[in-house]
Amino acid sequence: MKRLLSVTIFFSLLAITPAFSQARSADIAIVGGTVVTMDKDRRVIENGAVVMRGEKIEWVGKRSAMPARMRTARTIDATGKVVIPGLINTHTHVPMSLFRGIADDMDLQEWLTKFIFPAEAKNVDEAFVRAGTRLGLAEMIKGGTTTYCDMYYFEDAIADETKKAGMRGVLGETVIDFPVPDNKTWPEAIAYTERFIRKWQNDPLITPAIAPHAPYTVSQEHLLEARAVSDRLKAPLVIHLAEANTETEFIQQKHAGQRPIGFVENIGFFNDRTIAAHVIQANEAEIDLLKKHNVGVAHNPHSNMKLAAGTAPVPSMLRKGVNVGLGTDGAASNNDLSMWEEMDTAAKLHKLVSGDPKAMPAEVVFAMATIGGARALHMGDKIGSIEVGKLADIAIVGLDELHQTPMYNIYSHLVYATKASDVRTVIIHGRVVMLDRRLLTLNESVIKRDANTYRQKIINSLKN
Amino acid sequence: MKRLLSVTIFFSLLAITPAFSQARSADIAIVGGTVVTMDKDRRVIENGAVVMRGEKIEWVGKRSAMPARMRTARTIDATGKVVIPGLINTHTHVPMSLFRGIADDMDLQEWLTKFIFPAEAKNVDEAFVRAGTRLGLAEMIKGGTTTYCDMYYFEDAIADETKKAGMRGVLGETVIDFPVPDNKTWPEAIAYTERFIRKWQNDPLITPAIAPHAPYTVSQEHLLEARAVSDRLKAPLVIHLAEANTETEFIQQKHAGQRPIGFVENIGFFNDRTIAAHVIQANEAEIDLLKKHNVGVAHNPHSNMKLAAGTAPVPSMLRKGVNVGLGTDGAASNNDLSMWEEMDTAAKLHKLVSGDPKAMPAEVVFAMATIGGARALHMGDKIGSIEVGKLADIAIVGLDELHQTPMYNIYSHLVYATKASDVRTVIIHGRVVMLDRRLLTLNESVIKRDANTYRQKIINSLKN
Repeated sequence: MKRLLSVTIFFSLLAITPAFSQARSADIAIVGGTVVTMDKDRRVIENGAVVMRGEKIEWVGKRSAMPARMRTARTIDATGKVVIPGLINTHTHVPMSLFRGIADDMDLQEWLTKFIFPAEAKNVDEAFVRAGTRLGLAEMIKGGTTTYCDMYYFEDAIADETKKAGMRGVLGETVIDFPVPDNKTWPEAIAYTERFIRKWQNDPLITPAIAPHAPYTVSQEHLLEARAVSDRLKAPLVIHLAEANTETEFIQQKHAGQRPIGFVENIGFFNDRTIAAHVIQANEAEIDLLKKHNVGVAHNPHSNMKLAAGTAPVPSMLRKGVNVGLGTDGAASNNDLSMWEEMDTAAKLHKLVSGDPKAMPAEVVFAMATIGGARALHMGDKIGSIEVGKLADIAIVGLDELHQTPMYNIYSHLVYATKASDVRTVIIHGRVVMLDRRLLTLNESVIKRDANTYRQKIINSLKN
Repeated sequence: MKRLLSVTIFFSLLAITPAFSQARSADIAIVGGTVVTMDKDRRVIENGAVVMRGEKIEWVGKRSAMPARMRTARTIDATGKVVIPGLINTHTHVPMSLFRGIADDMDLQEWLTKFIFPAEAKNVDEAFVRAGTRLGLAEMIKGGTTTYCDMYYFEDAIADETKKAGMRGVLGETVIDFPVPDNKTWPEAIAYTERFIRKWQNDPLITPAIAPHAPYTVSQEHLLEARAVSDRLKAPLVIHLAEANTETEFIQQKHAGQRPIGFVENIGFFNDRTIAAHVIQANEAEIDLLKKHNVGVAHNPHSNMKLAAGTAPVPSMLRKGVNVGLGTDGAASNNDLSMWEEMDTAAKLHKLVSGDPKAMPAEVVFAMATIGGARALHMGDKIGSIEVGKLADIAIVGLDELHQTPMYNIYSHLVYATKASDVRTVIIHGRVVMLDRRLLTLNESVIKRDANTYRQKIINSLKN
């Protein structure tokens, strides 16, 4: 074990990361912690053990019942800590971490047209995307996130950085009806996306996807073309949907009074691989449509509040059996990638909006951040819970900070008291990517240095 | 400097704290950081310096302009960090930290009658209050809070613990129309409160206060008696006001259709030392009454959301010149004491509720957590900003964590990206109470041990 660790540190210090992480994954037993499984019985196992073989979970139970042959595995002591399924961030624009706080407290249109679009036009290239991705990945791993669903440009480079970091991603190349940094025309964008999907399709960590930006930025014809790519290549179909009043008004004007969800359903856009972000403008009938087509929903409370977009009707979606996960959105509209704050806010926001303090209890919210997010990404059979046969995506979280003292209920503590900074160790696909808060696959100081170089470049670009 | 530090550590290790902190306060210069003054010009000084003599701020400016005679002071290097006025938590029930997460996701009445009241009746005595206070103080100091405004029982013991910890407090002994842990009758409670106020009145750290619980739990006669105590002893008058619909309905029924704010104003309750928590049920005319009487308002977004109480009309209050601060409320309804999360949520909540993403910009919210809170506590001339002559209550906050990288705007970063865990060093009344995250006046491990002992006792008490 010690040798493996030294090798890892060596690579980490040199900022070189081997391309095939699985080759270095080892059998690991996490012992002694409280295991919050999020399995169908919602088992919480005190003094538990989780054993991983290769990339999969092989055994889960009481530490005292752990079979003898497993005791030879590498052991991580989680005594006094909680062992949870890795968190699943269902909506990000990861390279935008470089735009964190570049512009706040303004109208969406002003924000987009005066800051985000010009900053993107002047700065976003493949190198930018790689630096921003590493920054976002490092922040997410430090907060216990093990899978994320992204929409951006140069998604092939994002996939490459994600794989190098040992992170799991559903990565959607954004296609949109105007020229963007990586593709200047629609046919180019579709060709890029098809190549991208074919290249990564069988990767154990990366699920490549196509991401038509939104119904108000992609024509009906192009929406259907994107769906056809998704169908043909069996890749997820990721979209921003029903985010704002202005979107609803635009679609209603353009498409004979139809609202966004009804419109895309009507044209046959939804397939059973669809993942929709925001979904604020959704009435009961529209929620039924989401359920009918098994559309996964990414709920982003911080971003929605910051941009004054509204509140997604999540309690109703959950009642109707829609799979809802939580997301941070990009750092430019949040301004961090902490899933812990999304959980805390999701639980409280829906109490406020519904007027019911019983709405969205802590356990329901924690499920959204784990197994619910997995199902929203159509990966519920692979990740999102600590169960035998599932992929070994796990976070070990400390419970002894002052803000967590004392503890009465584990779900309450995870949702209302625990912070990203309490996460200690993270395992993805059976590989330790953070050990006791030290990143093993990413070089934190190089990432910060690069980010600060881009910061100066971005500031200069906006002066011109 | 080194010797002073050793003495501090020595006392800290023995969990003995000298009664008079000022005797040990030394001249300190904080140099090299970005100083966010929150003075009337909102000066932000890059590579600044703040010099303290005794308990006061003696000089603020560019490091390069610091007078030579001050260079002999003890120096704290804040290069790469931000130097801010200590945060002001305007509403807490600090001993309730021991009830953190004891019961969540339920109706206020169920929460109070099935959990909080029984748990309090069976557990709250002076020793409990002392242990809970130390826990809450430690969490608050670690998050950069330097002043808090409390309402609880055994407030004399809270004052004693607060002073020992070197924290500043406006501490209101709660008086209410039923027997409580420290006083069984109204006359006893008033007598206790008068003794308490006289005892602490001239203390440099403690501002003793009287805190009639709320208009629905204290009779008209007793509200006026509490005001008379406040007038006679020139002590703050702290109250929960206009928190919930149910309160409004109750007051309307009992007092000929009057709403809470109008009712208490009408009976002559408000004096110019009043501090009101929550203030959700406030229309424009009622906000005018708050302004007229210079009532300070404590806004508690996390608690209000969690209990589904509603949203205080803070933008309107600020427009009309009401002094509004931020508060966490007790840990049982939050479940932490982080002012950073209150700032983040306050900024976002009012954008959502108003539908205006320009509402409550970061700088306005940061002002609420500092100078606004000071004014709400009627201490705007003493604390809340880094200005010559003010008391030296200061936090030094790191800016180089991944979730803070890169940085474009200091206020945005403080409100939307910075966490309690980023606070490095805290100075209160010219005394260093936390140095590079190590508490110097409180023993963290003893506090946790005590809290866990109480946890078991509380769990057992609720079984009987």
